[in-house]
Amino acid sequence: MKKFENQDDKGIVFRPVGYIKSDHKTAEKTPVQPVFAQECSGEAIINEEFSEGLKGLEEFSHIIIIYHLHKARDTELLVKPFLDDRKHGIFATRFPKRPNKIGFSVVQLCGREGCSLKISGVDMLNGTPILDIKPFVRRFDFRADTKDGWYEKVDEKTAQKKGRRGFKPHS
Amino acid sequence: MKKFENQDDKGIVFRPVGYIKSDHKTAEKTPVQPVFAQECSGEAIINEEFSEGLKGLEEFSHIIIIYHLHKARDTELLVKPFLDDRKHGIFATRFPKRPNKIGFSVVQLCGREGCSLKISGVDMLNGTPILDIKPFVRRFDFRADTKDGWYEKVDEKTAQKKGRRGFKPHS
Repeated sequence: MKKFENQDDKGIVFRPVGYIKSDHKTAEKTPVQPVFAQECSGEAIINEEFSEGLKGLEEFSHIIIIYHLHKARDTELLVKPFLDDRKHGIFATRFPKRPNKIGFSVVQLCGREGCSLKISGVDMLNGTPILDIKPFVRRFDFRADTKDGWYEKVDEKTAQKKGRRGFKPHS
Repeated sequence: MKKFENQDDKGIVFRPVGYIKSDHKTAEKTPVQPVFAQECSGEAIINEEFSEGLKGLEEFSHIIIIYHLHKARDTELLVKPFLDDRKHGIFATRFPKRPNKIGFSVVQLCGREGCSLKISGVDMLNGTPILDIKPFVRRFDFRADTKDGWYEKVDEKTAQKKGRRGFKPHS
């Protein structure tokens, strides 16, 4: 692991606004993206003090969860991601060993009970600290015609197999 | 502004990996989303020490930038967002006065020269600290069939007018 020296100043401190409850107990068996975790349901539990901030969120079908990849260790600038055997720059992948361990998932919102958001497509470890929740807005976030770099060379079958990482839904 | 007391512990420290260069000098005249800023080009300048991490990013047409809303002050749980006159929970909006001041934009990547990423659709203030860059991947991030809460009631003309916030492209 390379050490990054010039970073002692300008730290920005965030504090969790809640945490994820999911069936994923170990990183090794956690699907790498919501698209590979469609059977996985769970909850985003928001701290009571922020409950007012959830008003109206239940009218959205999808939400963006920004979270701390709290089990990720080290930073690597060139990585072999889960879906490929070649090395890519960390910023050209969604791999966890990033300089700032920030995760981002678009999940389906199935309902809200007070401060508990019932979600599906959960690719987050149980206990993951939530930093922010935003509504997914088609007008803002939809991009249909994109060029997706090395991901375009990963066929769907391989993606499904590698992306699930051994996760088996309850039968 | 409400104070949140129970948050002294568990701070998570991130450090900028770079910053945004844009023509937006004041928050009041900055478009609220990339979709309202399509003529706005700028740069994401990544710190030299992370240059290796950008390898291959230029093969993507769109990137996700996660950044610190460094000029946002205070936290409000119920807010009138830019596009509406009614109050909504902060987590049901993209408004900046969030508990954690984290911004998220999908922008078009027009090219890369070393550590400078040429981007368009820039809705970020000049000098915005960048926390993370991720490739936009259609397979992961594309959601076509969504229900978008109160945003669905904002017509396109109003959205374009209010979303641009007085921004005028150079003529």
